[in-house]
Amino acid sequence: MQTVAIVGLGLIGGSLGLDLTRLGYRVIGVTRRPETAQMALAKEVVHQAGTDLPLVKEADIVVICTPMDGVVAIAQALLPHLKAATILTDVASVKGALVRELEALWPNFVGGHPMAGKAEAGLAVAEPNLFCGRPYVLTPTERTPQPAVTAMAHLAQQLGAHLYTCRPEEHDRAVAWISHLPVMVSSSLIQACQQEPEPTILALAQALASSGFRDTSRVGGGVPDLGTLMARYNRDALLQSLNLYQQQVERLKHWIVTEDWQGLHQFLSQAQGARPAYVEPTPQVGE
Amino acid sequence: MQTVAIVGLGLIGGSLGLDLTRLGYRVIGVTRRPETAQMALAKEVVHQAGTDLPLVKEADIVVICTPMDGVVAIAQALLPHLKAATILTDVASVKGALVRELEALWPNFVGGHPMAGKAEAGLAVAEPNLFCGRPYVLTPTERTPQPAVTAMAHLAQQLGAHLYTCRPEEHDRAVAWISHLPVMVSSSLIQACQQEPEPTILALAQALASSGFRDTSRVGGGVPDLGTLMARYNRDALLQSLNLYQQQVERLKHWIVTEDWQGLHQFLSQAQGARPAYVEPTPQVGE
Repeated sequence: MQTVAIVGLGLIGGSLGLDLTRLGYRVIGVTRRPETAQMALAKEVVHQAGTDLPLVKEADIVVICTPMDGVVAIAQALLPHLKAATILTDVASVKGALVRELEALWPNFVGGHPMAGKAEAGLAVAEPNLFCGRPYVLTPTERTPQPAVTAMAHLAQQLGAHLYTCRPEEHDRAVAWISHLPVMVSSSLIQACQQEPEPTILALAQALASSGFRDTSRVGGGVPDLGTLMARYNRDALLQSLNLYQQQVERLKHWIVTEDWQGLHQFLSQAQGARPAYVEPTPQVGE
Repeated sequence: MQTVAIVGLGLIGGSLGLDLTRLGYRVIGVTRRPETAQMALAKEVVHQAGTDLPLVKEADIVVICTPMDGVVAIAQALLPHLKAATILTDVASVKGALVRELEALWPNFVGGHPMAGKAEAGLAVAEPNLFCGRPYVLTPTERTPQPAVTAMAHLAQQLGAHLYTCRPEEHDRAVAWISHLPVMVSSSLIQACQQEPEPTILALAQALASSGFRDTSRVGGGVPDLGTLMARYNRDALLQSLNLYQQQVERLKHWIVTEDWQGLHQFLSQAQGARPAYVEPTPQVGE
Protein backbone atom coordinates (compact mmCIF):
# COMPACT_ATOMS: atom_id res chain seq x y z
CA MET A 1 0.00 0.00 0.00
CA GLN A 2 1.34 3.38 -0.99
CA THR A 3 1.35 6.22 1.50
CA VAL A 4 0.48 9.76 0.42
CA ALA A 5 1.05 12.76 2.67
CA ILE A 6 -1.02 15.87 1.98
CA VAL A 7 0.41 19.07 3.40
CA GLY A 8 -2.29 21.73 3.63
CA LEU A 9 -5.86 20.56 4.13
CA GLY A 10 -8.03 23.10 2.33
CA LEU A 11 -10.45 22.50 -0.52
CA ILE A 12 -7.85 20.86 -2.78
CA GLY A 13 -5.92 18.95 -0.13
CA GLY A 14 -9.10 17.81 1.59
CA SER A 15 -10.80 16.70 -1.63
CA LEU A 16 -7.65 14.82 -2.64
CA GLY A 17 -7.68 13.04 0.72
CA LEU A 18 -11.32 11.99 0.32
CA ASP A 19 -10.52 10.39 -3.05
CA LEU A 20 -7.18 8.80 -2.10
CA THR A 21 -8.48 7.15 1.08
CA ARG A 22 -11.28 5.56 -0.97
CA LEU A 23 -8.77 4.48 -3.64
CA GLY A 24 -6.89 2.43 -1.04
CA TYR A 25 -3.95 4.69 -0.30
CA ARG A 26 -2.80 5.30 3.23
CA VAL A 27 -3.26 9.07 3.64
CA ILE A 28 -1.52 11.32 6.15
CA GLY A 29 -2.57 14.95 6.57
CA VAL A 30 -0.36 17.77 7.82
CA THR A 31 -1.85 21.14 8.62
CA ARG A 32 -1.00 24.21 10.66
CA ARG A 33 -4.03 24.17 12.93
CA PRO A 34 -4.90 21.27 15.27
CA GLU A 35 -8.64 21.92 14.69
CA THR A 36 -8.18 21.32 10.96
CA ALA A 37 -6.41 18.03 11.70
CA GLN A 38 -9.35 17.02 13.94
CA MET A 39 -11.88 17.95 11.27
CA ALA A 40 -9.94 16.01 8.63
CA LEU A 41 -10.00 12.89 10.82
CA ALA A 42 -13.69 13.35 11.60
CA LYS A 43 -14.55 13.74 7.90
CA GLU A 44 -12.39 10.67 7.07
CA VAL A 45 -10.32 12.76 4.70
CA VAL A 46 -7.13 11.16 6.10
CA HIS A 47 -6.12 8.17 8.20
CA GLN A 48 -3.75 10.18 10.34
CA ALA A 49 -3.41 13.93 10.81
CA GLY A 50 -1.39 16.40 12.79
CA THR A 51 0.61 19.60 12.75
CA ASP A 52 4.11 18.05 12.80
CA LEU A 53 6.07 17.94 9.54
CA PRO A 54 7.89 14.67 10.51
CA LEU A 55 4.52 12.93 9.93
CA VAL A 56 5.46 12.83 6.22
CA LYS A 57 8.48 10.56 6.81
CA GLU A 58 6.73 7.37 5.66
CA ALA A 59 5.16 8.93 2.58
CA ASP A 60 5.90 7.66 -0.93
CA ILE A 61 4.29 10.78 -2.38
CA VAL A 62 4.04 14.19 -0.68
CA VAL A 63 1.54 16.64 -2.16
CA ILE A 64 1.95 20.27 -1.07
CA CYS A 65 -1.52 21.86 -1.16
CA THR A 66 -0.83 25.18 0.57
CA PRO A 67 -1.41 28.55 -1.15
CA MET A 68 1.13 29.33 -3.87
CA ASP A 69 3.22 31.76 -1.81
CA GLY A 70 3.80 29.16 0.91
CA VAL A 71 4.94 26.25 -1.25
CA VAL A 72 8.72 26.83 -1.34
CA ALA A 73 9.02 27.49 2.40
CA ILE A 74 7.01 24.35 3.21
CA ALA A 75 9.10 22.30 0.79
CA GLN A 76 12.30 23.47 2.45
CA ALA A 77 10.94 22.59 5.87
CA LEU A 78 9.85 19.14 4.65
CA LEU A 79 13.17 18.11 3.06
CA PRO A 80 14.83 16.67 6.21
CA HIS A 81 11.84 14.37 6.70
CA LEU A 82 11.58 12.84 3.20
CA LYS A 83 12.78 9.35 2.20
CA ALA A 84 15.24 9.46 -0.72
CA ALA A 85 12.68 7.88 -3.07
CA THR A 86 9.78 10.12 -2.08
CA ILE A 87 8.06 11.95 -4.90
CA LEU A 88 7.30 15.57 -4.09
CA THR A 89 4.55 17.36 -5.99
CA ASP A 90 2.41 20.49 -5.64
CA VAL A 91 -0.94 21.81 -6.88
CA ALA A 92 -0.10 25.48 -7.52
CA SER A 93 -1.89 27.19 -10.41
CA VAL A 94 1.32 28.79 -11.75
CA LYS A 95 4.28 26.51 -12.44
CA GLY A 96 7.29 28.23 -14.07
CA ALA A 97 9.50 29.75 -11.37
CA LEU A 98 8.03 27.53 -8.66
CA VAL A 99 8.92 24.31 -10.51
CA ARG A 100 12.51 25.50 -11.06
CA GLU A 101 12.91 26.32 -7.36
CA LEU A 102 11.34 23.09 -6.17
CA GLU A 103 13.26 20.76 -8.46
CA ALA A 104 16.46 22.48 -7.32
CA LEU A 105 15.49 21.59 -3.74
CA TRP A 106 14.34 18.03 -4.46
CA PRO A 107 15.25 16.25 -7.71
CA ASN A 108 12.35 13.83 -7.41
CA PHE A 109 9.83 16.64 -7.86
CA VAL A 110 6.98 16.83 -10.41
CA GLY A 111 4.94 20.01 -10.75
CA GLY A 112 1.19 19.45 -10.87
CA HIS A 113 -1.96 21.50 -11.30
CA PRO A 114 -5.28 19.80 -10.74
CA MET A 115 -7.67 22.35 -12.28
CA ALA A 116 -10.64 22.10 -10.01
CA GLY A 117 -12.11 24.64 -7.69
CA LYS A 118 -15.22 26.01 -6.07
CA ALA A 119 -16.44 29.46 -5.13
CA GLU A 120 -15.66 28.74 -1.48
CA ALA A 121 -12.37 27.61 0.01
CA GLY A 122 -11.43 25.40 2.96
CA LEU A 123 -11.72 21.85 4.22
CA ALA A 124 -15.40 22.35 5.08
CA VAL A 125 -16.30 22.43 1.36
CA ALA A 126 -13.96 19.57 0.32
CA GLU A 127 -15.80 16.89 -1.62
CA PRO A 128 -15.20 13.51 -3.27
CA ASN A 129 -14.61 13.37 -7.05
CA LEU A 130 -13.69 17.05 -7.26
CA PHE A 131 -11.04 16.20 -9.87
CA CYS A 132 -13.12 13.74 -11.86
CA GLY A 133 -13.50 14.86 -15.47
CA ARG A 134 -11.32 17.94 -14.85
CA PRO A 135 -7.83 18.60 -16.24
CA TYR A 136 -4.80 17.53 -14.17
CA VAL A 137 -1.69 19.11 -15.68
CA LEU A 138 1.76 17.69 -14.95
CA THR A 139 4.73 19.89 -15.83
CA PRO A 140 7.90 17.79 -15.89
CA THR A 141 11.14 19.37 -17.07
CA GLU A 142 14.28 17.89 -18.65
CA ARG A 143 15.45 17.17 -15.08
CA THR A 144 12.35 15.32 -13.85
CA PRO A 145 12.84 11.55 -13.34
CA GLN A 146 10.47 9.60 -15.61
CA PRO A 147 9.29 7.19 -12.85
CA ALA A 148 8.04 10.16 -10.83
CA VAL A 149 6.04 11.40 -13.84
CA THR A 150 4.59 7.92 -14.42
CA ALA A 151 3.57 7.60 -10.77
CA MET A 152 1.84 10.99 -10.77
CA ALA A 153 0.14 10.28 -14.10
CA HIS A 154 -1.22 7.05 -12.61
CA LEU A 155 -2.51 8.92 -9.56
CA ALA A 156 -4.21 11.60 -11.69
CA GLN A 157 -5.90 8.93 -13.79
CA GLN A 158 -7.11 7.13 -10.67
CA LEU A 159 -8.80 10.40 -9.66
CA GLY A 160 -10.71 10.30 -12.97
CA ALA A 161 -8.96 13.48 -14.11
CA HIS A 162 -7.99 14.27 -17.70
CA LEU A 163 -4.22 14.17 -17.77
CA TYR A 164 -2.17 16.77 -19.64
CA THR A 165 1.60 16.93 -19.71
CA CYS A 166 3.54 20.00 -20.85
CA ARG A 167 6.46 22.21 -19.93
CA PRO A 168 5.90 24.59 -16.98
CA GLU A 169 6.16 27.62 -19.28
CA GLU A 170 3.58 26.20 -21.69
CA HIS A 171 1.19 25.63 -18.81
CA ASP A 172 1.66 29.18 -17.59
CA ARG A 173 1.01 30.75 -20.97
CA ALA A 174 -2.09 28.62 -21.49
CA VAL A 175 -3.57 29.50 -18.09
CA ALA A 176 -2.65 33.16 -18.56
CA TRP A 177 -5.09 33.16 -21.47
CA ILE A 178 -7.98 31.17 -20.11
CA SER A 179 -7.76 31.72 -16.38
CA HIS A 180 -5.69 34.78 -15.42
CA LEU A 181 -6.57 37.18 -18.23
CA PRO A 182 -10.33 36.63 -17.72
CA VAL A 183 -9.94 37.70 -14.07
CA MET A 184 -8.29 40.95 -15.14
CA VAL A 185 -10.75 41.63 -17.98
CA SER A 186 -13.67 40.94 -15.70
CA SER A 187 -12.51 42.96 -12.69
CA SER A 188 -11.75 45.90 -15.00
CA LEU A 189 -15.34 45.70 -16.28
CA ILE A 190 -16.70 46.10 -12.77
CA GLN A 191 -14.27 48.91 -11.99
CA ALA A 192 -15.20 50.69 -15.23
CA CYS A 193 -18.92 50.64 -14.42
CA GLN A 194 -18.08 52.15 -11.05
CA GLN A 195 -16.66 55.17 -12.91
CA GLU A 196 -20.14 56.27 -14.05
CA PRO A 197 -20.34 59.82 -12.68
CA GLU A 198 -24.17 60.11 -12.46
CA PRO A 199 -25.52 58.33 -9.37
CA THR A 200 -28.96 57.82 -10.94
CA ILE A 201 -27.46 56.15 -14.00
CA LEU A 202 -25.19 53.98 -11.85
CA ALA A 203 -28.22 52.89 -9.80
CA LEU A 204 -30.16 52.16 -12.99
CA ALA A 205 -27.25 50.15 -14.44
CA GLN A 206 -27.05 48.13 -11.23
CA ALA A 207 -30.80 47.48 -11.29
CA LEU A 208 -30.88 46.50 -14.98
CA ALA A 209 -27.81 44.23 -14.90
CA SER A 210 -28.79 40.63 -15.55
CA SER A 211 -27.26 37.34 -16.66
CA GLY A 212 -24.89 38.86 -19.23
CA PHE A 213 -23.27 41.13 -16.70
CA ARG A 214 -23.45 38.45 -14.02
CA ASP A 215 -21.45 36.01 -16.13
CA THR A 216 -18.94 38.47 -17.53
CA SER A 217 -18.18 39.89 -14.09
CA ARG A 218 -18.11 36.63 -12.13
CA VAL A 219 -14.40 35.82 -12.08
CA GLY A 220 -13.50 39.50 -11.65
CA GLY A 221 -15.57 39.63 -8.49
CA GLY A 222 -13.75 36.62 -7.03
CA VAL A 223 -11.14 36.26 -4.31
CA PRO A 224 -8.59 39.14 -4.57
CA ASP A 225 -5.89 37.05 -2.85
CA LEU A 226 -5.93 34.45 -5.61
CA GLY A 227 -6.06 37.06 -8.40
CA THR A 228 -3.04 38.82 -6.92
CA LEU A 229 -1.06 35.57 -6.63
CA MET A 230 -1.89 34.71 -10.25
CA ALA A 231 -0.49 38.04 -11.42
CA ARG A 232 2.52 37.89 -9.12
CA TYR A 233 3.59 34.38 -10.07
CA ASN A 234 2.59 34.53 -13.74
CA ARG A 235 3.51 38.16 -14.32
CA ASP A 236 5.29 37.87 -17.66
CA ALA A 237 2.78 35.61 -19.39
CA LEU A 238 -0.10 37.65 -18.03
CA LEU A 239 1.41 40.95 -19.20
CA GLN A 240 1.94 39.47 -22.65
CA SER A 241 -1.72 38.40 -22.73
CA LEU A 242 -2.89 41.76 -21.40
CA ASN A 243 -0.97 43.61 -24.12
CA LEU A 244 -2.50 41.49 -26.86
CA TYR A 245 -5.88 41.94 -25.22
CA GLN A 246 -5.53 45.72 -25.19
CA GLN A 247 -4.71 45.57 -28.90
CA GLN A 248 -7.96 43.72 -29.56
CA VAL A 249 -10.02 46.23 -27.57
CA GLU A 250 -8.32 49.01 -29.52
CA ARG A 251 -9.10 47.24 -32.79
CA LEU A 252 -12.74 46.80 -31.85
CA LYS A 253 -12.98 50.43 -30.75
CA HIS A 254 -11.55 51.48 -34.08
CA TRP A 255 -14.48 49.88 -35.94
CA ILE A 256 -16.90 51.77 -33.70
CA VAL A 257 -15.09 55.12 -33.92
CA THR A 258 -14.91 54.90 -37.71
CA GLU A 259 -18.45 53.49 -37.89
CA ASP A 260 -17.16 50.53 -39.86
CA TRP A 261 -20.04 48.23 -38.99
CA GLN A 262 -18.90 45.55 -41.39
CA GLY A 263 -15.53 45.47 -39.66
CA LEU A 264 -17.18 45.22 -36.25
CA HIS A 265 -19.54 42.51 -37.47
CA GLN A 266 -16.59 40.52 -38.75
CA PHE A 267 -14.75 40.94 -35.43
CA LEU A 268 -17.78 39.70 -33.48
CA SER A 269 -18.35 36.86 -35.94
CA GLN A 270 -14.75 35.73 -35.54
CA ALA A 271 -15.18 35.73 -31.75
CA GLN A 272 -18.42 33.76 -32.06
CA GLY A 273 -16.75 31.27 -34.39
CA ALA A 274 -13.68 30.85 -32.18
CA ARG A 275 -15.43 30.32 -28.84
CA PRO A 276 -16.69 26.72 -29.23
CA ALA A 277 -13.10 25.42 -29.39
CA TYR A 278 -12.66 26.68 -25.81
CA VAL A 279 -15.96 25.76 -24.25
CA GLU A 280 -16.98 22.51 -25.89
CA PRO A 281 -15.65 19.18 -24.69
CA THR A 282 -12.35 18.50 -26.45
CA PRO A 283 -10.39 15.30 -26.81
CA GLN A 284 -7.40 14.94 -24.54
CA VAL A 285 -4.14 16.33 -25.87
CA GLY A 286 -0.65 15.50 -24.63
CA GLU A 287 -0.24 12.30 -22.65
CA MET B 1 -61.55 44.60 -24.39
CA GLN B 2 -58.37 46.29 -25.57
CA THR B 3 -56.74 45.26 -28.82
CA VAL B 4 -52.96 44.99 -29.12
CA ALA B 5 -51.21 44.58 -32.45
CA ILE B 6 -47.75 43.04 -32.43
CA VAL B 7 -45.65 43.79 -35.50
CA GLY B 8 -42.82 41.29 -35.78
CA LEU B 9 -43.36 37.83 -34.34
CA GLY B 10 -39.96 36.68 -33.13
CA LEU B 11 -38.97 35.70 -29.61
CA ILE B 12 -40.08 39.00 -28.04
CA GLY B 13 -43.20 39.59 -30.15
CA GLY B 14 -44.26 35.95 -29.85
CA SER B 15 -43.72 35.77 -26.09
CA LEU B 16 -45.63 39.04 -25.66
CA GLY B 17 -48.53 37.54 -27.64
CA LEU B 18 -48.60 34.42 -25.47
CA ASP B 19 -48.93 36.55 -22.35
CA LEU B 20 -51.37 39.15 -23.71
CA THR B 21 -53.83 36.59 -25.12
CA ARG B 22 -53.93 34.92 -21.68
CA LEU B 23 -54.40 38.31 -20.01
CA GLY B 24 -57.59 38.87 -21.99
CA TYR B 25 -56.39 41.24 -24.69
CA ARG B 26 -57.43 40.76 -28.26
CA VAL B 27 -54.08 40.21 -30.03
CA ILE B 28 -53.33 40.73 -33.72
CA GLY B 29 -50.01 39.67 -35.21
CA VAL B 30 -48.37 41.17 -38.28
CA THR B 31 -45.36 39.53 -39.80
CA ARG B 32 -43.49 39.46 -43.11
CA ARG B 33 -43.80 35.76 -43.79
CA PRO B 34 -47.13 33.93 -44.13
CA GLU B 35 -45.60 30.82 -42.51
CA THR B 36 -44.81 32.82 -39.38
CA ALA B 37 -48.42 34.05 -39.25
CA GLN B 38 -49.61 30.42 -39.53
CA MET B 39 -47.27 29.29 -36.78
CA ALA B 40 -48.40 32.16 -34.52
CA LEU B 41 -52.03 31.12 -34.97
CA ALA B 42 -51.20 27.45 -34.39
CA LYS B 43 -49.27 28.29 -31.18
CA GLU B 44 -52.14 30.53 -30.01
CA VAL B 45 -49.76 33.46 -29.77
CA VAL B 46 -52.35 35.71 -31.46
CA HIS B 47 -56.07 35.67 -32.28
CA GLN B 48 -55.53 36.92 -35.79
CA ALA B 49 -52.38 37.08 -37.91
CA GLY B 50 -51.28 38.08 -41.37
CA THR B 51 -48.79 39.95 -43.47
CA ASP B 52 -50.88 43.07 -44.18
CA LEU B 53 -50.14 46.24 -42.24
CA PRO B 54 -53.81 47.42 -42.31
CA LEU B 55 -54.51 44.61 -39.82
CA VAL B 56 -53.39 47.05 -37.09
CA LYS B 57 -56.24 49.47 -37.76
CA GLU B 58 -58.34 48.37 -34.76
CA ALA B 59 -55.47 48.29 -32.32
CA ASP B 60 -55.39 50.44 -29.18
CA ILE B 61 -51.71 49.65 -28.71
CA VAL B 62 -49.24 48.74 -31.47
CA VAL B 63 -45.96 47.15 -30.36
CA ILE B 64 -43.18 47.11 -32.95
CA CYS B 65 -41.04 44.05 -32.23
CA THR B 66 -38.81 43.96 -35.32
CA PRO B 67 -35.01 44.22 -35.12
CA MET B 68 -33.77 47.70 -34.22
CA ASP B 69 -32.76 48.74 -37.72
CA GLY B 70 -36.25 48.07 -39.08
CA VAL B 71 -38.29 49.98 -36.50
CA VAL B 72 -38.48 53.43 -38.12
CA ALA B 73 -39.36 52.12 -41.58
CA ILE B 74 -42.11 49.91 -40.13
CA ALA B 75 -43.47 52.81 -38.07
CA GLN B 76 -43.65 55.00 -41.17
CA ALA B 77 -45.49 52.29 -43.06
CA LEU B 78 -47.94 51.78 -40.18
CA LEU B 79 -48.90 55.45 -39.71
CA PRO B 80 -51.72 55.57 -42.30
CA HIS B 81 -53.42 52.64 -40.58
CA LEU B 82 -53.41 53.88 -36.98
CA LYS B 83 -56.39 55.33 -35.10
CA ALA B 84 -55.68 58.81 -33.70
CA ALA B 85 -55.71 57.49 -30.12
CA THR B 86 -53.50 54.48 -30.78
CA ILE B 87 -50.43 54.16 -28.60
CA LEU B 88 -47.32 53.17 -30.52
CA THR B 89 -44.43 51.53 -28.67
CA ASP B 90 -41.34 49.50 -29.47
CA VAL B 91 -39.02 47.03 -27.75
CA ALA B 92 -35.62 48.10 -29.11
CA SER B 93 -32.63 47.75 -26.78
CA VAL B 94 -31.29 51.23 -27.60
CA LYS B 95 -33.66 54.18 -27.18
CA GLY B 96 -32.07 57.62 -27.74
CA ALA B 97 -32.17 58.48 -31.43
CA LEU B 98 -34.91 55.96 -32.15
CA VAL B 99 -37.29 57.53 -29.62
CA ARG B 100 -36.69 61.01 -31.04
CA GLU B 101 -37.44 59.82 -34.57
CA LEU B 102 -40.51 57.83 -33.57
CA GLU B 103 -42.12 60.52 -31.44
CA ALA B 104 -41.63 62.95 -34.33
CA LEU B 105 -43.61 60.53 -36.49
CA TRP B 106 -46.32 59.72 -33.96
CA PRO B 107 -46.88 61.93 -30.90
CA ASN B 108 -48.61 59.13 -28.98
CA PHE B 109 -45.41 57.09 -28.86
CA VAL B 110 -43.72 55.63 -25.77
CA GLY B 111 -40.32 53.97 -26.05
CA GLY B 112 -40.03 50.62 -24.28
CA HIS B 113 -37.40 48.00 -23.59
CA PRO B 114 -38.51 44.72 -22.05
CA MET B 115 -35.15 43.27 -20.97
CA ALA B 116 -35.67 39.60 -21.57
CA GLY B 117 -33.95 37.31 -24.00
CA LYS B 118 -32.72 33.84 -24.71
CA ALA B 119 -29.74 32.36 -26.49
CA GLU B 120 -31.93 31.51 -29.47
CA ALA B 121 -34.16 33.82 -31.47
CA GLY B 122 -37.46 33.38 -33.32
CA LEU B 123 -41.09 32.51 -32.73
CA ALA B 124 -40.24 28.83 -32.25
CA VAL B 125 -38.59 29.62 -28.88
CA ALA B 126 -41.23 32.14 -27.69
CA GLU B 127 -42.56 31.26 -24.25
CA PRO B 128 -45.10 32.49 -21.69
CA ASN B 129 -43.92 34.63 -18.77
CA LEU B 130 -40.68 35.61 -20.51
CA PHE B 131 -40.97 39.11 -19.03
CA CYS B 132 -42.03 38.05 -15.55
CA GLY B 133 -39.59 39.29 -12.93
CA ARG B 134 -37.47 41.03 -15.58
CA PRO B 135 -37.01 44.79 -16.07
CA TYR B 136 -39.36 46.62 -18.46
CA VAL B 137 -37.95 50.09 -19.09
CA LEU B 138 -40.18 52.89 -20.41
CA THR B 139 -38.44 55.98 -21.75
CA PRO B 140 -40.94 58.84 -22.02
CA THR B 141 -39.68 62.28 -22.98
CA GLU B 142 -41.02 65.77 -22.24
CA ARG B 143 -43.26 65.29 -25.31
CA THR B 144 -44.81 61.93 -24.34
CA PRO B 145 -48.51 62.10 -23.34
CA GLN B 146 -48.95 60.91 -19.74
CA PRO B 147 -51.95 58.62 -20.51
CA ALA B 148 -49.79 56.66 -22.96
CA VAL B 149 -47.13 56.16 -20.27
CA THR B 150 -49.77 55.07 -17.77
CA ALA B 151 -51.25 52.55 -20.20
CA MET B 152 -47.85 51.04 -21.01
CA ALA B 153 -46.90 50.94 -17.33
CA HIS B 154 -50.11 49.02 -16.65
CA LEU B 155 -49.34 46.57 -19.44
CA ALA B 156 -45.78 45.99 -18.19
CA GLN B 157 -47.05 45.34 -14.70
CA GLN B 158 -49.62 42.87 -16.00
CA LEU B 159 -46.72 40.96 -17.59
CA GLY B 160 -45.20 40.66 -14.12
CA ALA B 161 -42.23 42.77 -15.20
CA HIS B 162 -40.33 45.20 -12.96
CA LEU B 163 -41.14 48.63 -14.31
CA TYR B 164 -38.47 51.31 -14.67
CA THR B 165 -39.01 54.77 -16.12
CA CYS B 166 -36.18 57.02 -17.24
CA ARG B 167 -35.11 59.31 -20.06
CA PRO B 168 -33.95 57.56 -23.28
CA GLU B 169 -30.39 58.83 -22.79
CA GLU B 170 -30.27 57.52 -19.21
CA HIS B 171 -31.42 54.11 -20.42
CA ASP B 172 -28.75 54.05 -23.11
CA ARG B 173 -25.93 54.94 -20.75
CA ALA B 174 -27.06 52.33 -18.24
CA VAL B 175 -27.28 49.54 -20.83
CA ALA B 176 -23.96 50.61 -22.36
CA TRP B 177 -22.37 49.66 -19.03
CA ILE B 178 -24.13 46.44 -18.20
CA SER B 179 -25.11 45.05 -21.57
CA HIS B 180 -23.12 46.53 -24.46
CA LEU B 181 -19.70 46.98 -22.84
CA PRO B 182 -19.68 43.35 -21.57
CA VAL B 183 -20.18 42.14 -25.17
CA MET B 184 -17.15 44.13 -26.33
CA VAL B 185 -14.98 43.13 -23.34
CA SER B 186 -15.91 39.51 -23.78
CA SER B 187 -15.47 39.28 -27.58
CA SER B 188 -12.07 40.99 -27.23
CA LEU B 189 -11.07 38.30 -24.72
CA ILE B 190 -11.81 35.55 -27.25
CA GLN B 191 -10.03 37.46 -30.02
CA ALA B 192 -7.00 38.02 -27.76
CA CYS B 193 -6.64 34.32 -26.99
CA GLN B 194 -6.73 33.64 -30.72
CA GLN B 195 -3.54 35.75 -31.04
CA GLU B 196 -1.46 33.11 -29.24
CA PRO B 197 1.25 32.37 -31.83
CA GLU B 198 2.15 28.84 -30.65
CA PRO B 199 -0.37 26.27 -31.90
CA THR B 200 0.45 23.82 -29.09
CA ILE B 201 -0.18 26.48 -26.44
CA LEU B 202 -3.40 27.58 -28.13
CA ALA B 203 -4.61 23.97 -28.19
CA LEU B 204 -3.66 23.57 -24.53
CA ALA B 205 -5.48 26.78 -23.59
CA GLN B 206 -8.59 25.58 -25.43
CA ALA B 207 -8.42 22.22 -23.67
CA LEU B 208 -7.88 23.70 -20.20
CA ALA B 209 -10.54 26.42 -20.45
CA SER B 210 -13.35 25.79 -17.99
CA SER B 211 -16.19 27.61 -16.25
CA GLY B 212 -14.28 30.87 -15.71
CA PHE B 213 -13.51 31.26 -19.38
CA ARG B 214 -16.92 29.94 -20.35
CA ASP B 215 -18.71 32.61 -18.34
CA THR B 216 -16.41 35.50 -19.21
CA SER B 217 -16.60 34.73 -22.94
CA ARG B 218 -20.31 33.92 -23.16
CA VAL B 219 -21.79 37.23 -24.28
CA GLY B 220 -18.79 37.91 -26.54
CA GLY B 221 -19.50 34.68 -28.38
CA GLY B 222 -23.12 35.68 -28.99
CA VAL B 223 -24.99 36.88 -32.07
CA PRO B 224 -22.78 39.31 -34.09
CA ASP B 225 -25.85 41.01 -35.63
CA LEU B 226 -27.11 42.13 -32.25
CA GLY B 227 -23.67 43.22 -31.04
CA THR B 228 -23.24 45.33 -34.16
CA LEU B 229 -26.65 46.97 -33.76
CA MET B 230 -25.88 47.77 -30.11
CA ALA B 231 -22.70 49.56 -31.13
CA ARG B 232 -24.29 51.29 -34.09
CA TYR B 233 -27.31 52.63 -32.22
CA ASN B 234 -25.57 53.28 -28.90
CA ARG B 235 -22.24 54.41 -30.32
CA ASP B 236 -21.57 57.45 -28.14
CA ALA B 237 -22.47 55.89 -24.81
CA LEU B 238 -20.59 52.72 -25.70
CA LEU B 239 -17.45 54.63 -26.73
CA GLN B 240 -17.57 56.58 -23.47
CA SER B 241 -17.81 53.29 -21.54
CA LEU B 242 -15.06 51.70 -23.62
CA ASN B 243 -12.71 54.61 -22.93
CA LEU B 244 -13.28 54.39 -19.19
CA TYR B 245 -12.86 50.62 -19.43
CA GLN B 246 -9.51 50.98 -21.20
CA GLN B 247 -8.37 53.31 -18.41
CA GLN B 248 -9.18 50.63 -15.84
CA VAL B 249 -7.28 47.94 -17.76
CA GLU B 250 -4.34 50.34 -18.00
CA ARG B 251 -4.54 51.03 -14.25
CA LEU B 252 -4.61 47.33 -13.46
CA LYS B 253 -1.70 46.67 -15.81
CA HIS B 254 0.25 49.41 -14.09
CA TRP B 255 0.08 47.55 -10.75
CA ILE B 256 1.39 44.41 -12.47
CA VAL B 257 4.15 46.18 -14.44
CA THR B 258 5.39 47.96 -11.31
CA GLU B 259 4.84 44.82 -9.20
CA ASP B 260 2.69 46.80 -6.81
CA TRP B 261 0.81 43.79 -5.43
CA GLN B 262 -0.91 45.84 -2.74
CA GLY B 263 -2.28 48.14 -5.43
CA LEU B 264 -3.49 45.17 -7.48
CA HIS B 265 -5.02 43.54 -4.42
CA GLN B 266 -6.88 46.74 -3.63
CA PHE B 267 -8.14 46.99 -7.24
CA LEU B 268 -9.42 43.40 -7.15
CA SER B 269 -10.94 43.91 -3.69
CA GLN B 270 -12.82 46.98 -4.92
CA ALA B 271 -14.17 44.97 -7.85
CA GLN B 272 -15.22 42.17 -5.52
CA GLY B 273 -16.90 44.65 -3.19
CA ALA B 274 -18.72 46.47 -5.99
CA ARG B 275 -20.13 43.44 -7.83
CA PRO B 276 -22.99 42.45 -5.48
CA ALA B 277 -24.80 45.75 -6.18
CA TYR B 278 -25.11 44.62 -9.82
CA VAL B 279 -25.90 40.94 -9.41
CA GLU B 280 -28.00 40.68 -6.28
CA PRO B 281 -31.73 41.33 -6.36
CA THR B 282 -32.32 45.03 -5.90
CA PRO B 283 -35.46 46.93 -5.01
CA GLN B 284 -37.23 48.64 -7.88
CA VAL B 285 -36.09 52.17 -8.67
CA GLY B 286 -37.82 54.73 -10.86
CA GLU B 287 -41.61 54.68 -11.07
